[in-house]
Amino acid sequence: MRCRRCREPSIIEIRRHNAAFCGPCLLHHCREQVARAIHDFDMFEPQQRLLVAVSGGKDSLALWDILLELGYAADGLYLGLGIDGPDGYSDASASFARRFAEEREALLVTVDLRRDYGYDIPTGAAAARRTPCSACGLSKRHLFNEAARAGGYDVVATGHNLDDEAAVLMGNVLRWNTDYLGRQLPVLPATEGFVRKVKPLVRLAEREMAAYCIVRGIDYIVEECPMAAGNRHLGYKEALNEIEDRSPGSKQAFYFGFLERASPHFRPEALEDQQELQPCPSCGAPTTSGSRCAFCALVAKASVAPVAPVPVSLGGHRRWEP
Amino acid sequence: MRCRRCREPSIIEIRRHNAAFCGPCLLHHCREQVARAIHDFDMFEPQQRLLVAVSGGKDSLALWDILLELGYAADGLYLGLGIDGPDGYSDASASFARRFAEEREALLVTVDLRRDYGYDIPTGAAAARRTPCSACGLSKRHLFNEAARAGGYDVVATGHNLDDEAAVLMGNVLRWNTDYLGRQLPVLPATEGFVRKVKPLVRLAEREMAAYCIVRGIDYIVEECPMAAGNRHLGYKEALNEIEDRSPGSKQAFYFGFLERASPHFRPEALEDQQELQPCPSCGAPTTSGSRCAFCALVAKASVAPVAPVPVSLGGHRRWEP
Repeated sequence: MRCRRCREPSIIEIRRHNAAFCGPCLLHHCREQVARAIHDFDMFEPQQRLLVAVSGGKDSLALWDILLELGYAADGLYLGLGIDGPDGYSDASASFARRFAEEREALLVTVDLRRDYGYDIPTGAAAARRTPCSACGLSKRHLFNEAARAGGYDVVATGHNLDDEAAVLMGNVLRWNTDYLGRQLPVLPATEGFVRKVKPLVRLAEREMAAYCIVRGIDYIVEECPMAAGNRHLGYKEALNEIEDRSPGSKQAFYFGFLERASPHFRPEALEDQQELQPCPSCGAPTTSGSRCAFCALVAKASVAPVAPVPVSLGGHRRWEP
Repeated sequence: MRCRRCREPSIIEIRRHNAAFCGPCLLHHCREQVARAIHDFDMFEPQQRLLVAVSGGKDSLALWDILLELGYAADGLYLGLGIDGPDGYSDASASFARRFAEEREALLVTVDLRRDYGYDIPTGAAAARRTPCSACGLSKRHLFNEAARAGGYDVVATGHNLDDEAAVLMGNVLRWNTDYLGRQLPVLPATEGFVRKVKPLVRLAEREMAAYCIVRGIDYIVEECPMAAGNRHLGYKEALNEIEDRSPGSKQAFYFGFLERASPHFRPEALEDQQELQPCPSCGAPTTSGSRCAFCALVAKASVAPVAPVPVSLGGHRRWEP
């Protein structure tokens, strides 16, 4: 097949767009789709400071790359989760993130759970009787937000792509978790104590992000997190992939149809469900619990002796310096 | 494993109920689940006359059997679709329906598309440029309703089971067809010109219906309709089966969670969408089109010469007499 834009031989077919692209035009396509998502959902303004949540995987590195290419002021935040796995998952992913930042002389802030908070995901999850994915999600939400507040960033950008969002939506729909459905949006506006969160890759699929990295020469960690193997989310991805194979465009219709025609029905419930927030007595982050926040509870359970909370400020984290 | 009710050796495990049953207790379980659906959704009253849409497959024959066992006045309606396939699909399915009725001395009304309306599903679909499943669905909806009106039945009962409803729901959700979502209910109340429609098997899965028939000695057509092979609906069933395998109970949570927490959001839209109905000038059935109804249009397109509509009354259909 030939590239839809320039008629040169193509390297990737994108069936849901009934299109194929050569390498350079794929990069153009990805940047265009990100620019369109930023515009359509009013994600942020050119002068705002963005903090990209960087895992070392294809999505977050491609997102960071595209935002820099589009001229945004985007720093990265890498969170060391302490997941070893057979190939030293966390160490390997950190080195991909570092190399990317080094090559672009970009600022990569790092927070390390073991070093800065005295726990890691496997031990923290076990101690708090959570699944690893639950402990990881809680830690990420808390620490990305706190780092963005401390560093004066306007927005946290994450690399969730169309496949991710469709799979999360499938999980929420299968259980009709109306509260989560009301909040599953590509933009979560800033509220008291919470920095604005955006997902600029929602118009792009996993395959496109992998191809983007290959064409751009971005090395990334290919392995999935060893702790996520067999989780429900991956099962939903597989189910959606089979549906997409039969009917290209199904995922996009599912996710964007939801935003357009169903999400508004569930938003009032999600709002009603928002409780009064108070500062966590331990770390100061907003929390509904009345006592310490879920993150501080996790840190406390994961430590034999209570860990003094590390003051969350960029000064308190060691930066990676190129 | 042992039967949950009587501790005898079991013949079927039902993981979503964390239960297993022996043959007799499986029959009890199925009847109980049907009785519960009839009660919970206020499907019909003991003295009402029911018309069961009978295909010759496991679901509709099991439904008819259970309704008779529960003491309801239930007649059957078999619709000859004229689908041949390698094994004479329609002829074979008709003979299973006939044998069932004969054994129980039950009344089976038959309508035959070729004999009574001058077309069959394959030729009708091609002539009307519809998919076979679309032409079939349209024909069934129209003819079941017309036969029930003509015969003075209070309710049309169909054998849609939990797997069917979950797969239809998946299709409606993947496209966020909010209008269909608002009307996907186990009971559609009677409205001007439309007989009440109910789905008493929504609490039972496909596997349970197959096992029910085996235990009861009900012979049924095992083959899927040859025209449905590869359609989207079967793809959704497969996707849901994989999700159910990993997390038993997913389908039930999906369907009943929808009814409880999501369906009410979409009902107002479905109601708004209801247009004024007028009698079809050709057959008298209610239609929104302003001209002849979609069924009469299909019949007309499928016939070289326009077919005089067969008056829809039970007298106009040949009955099968035991």
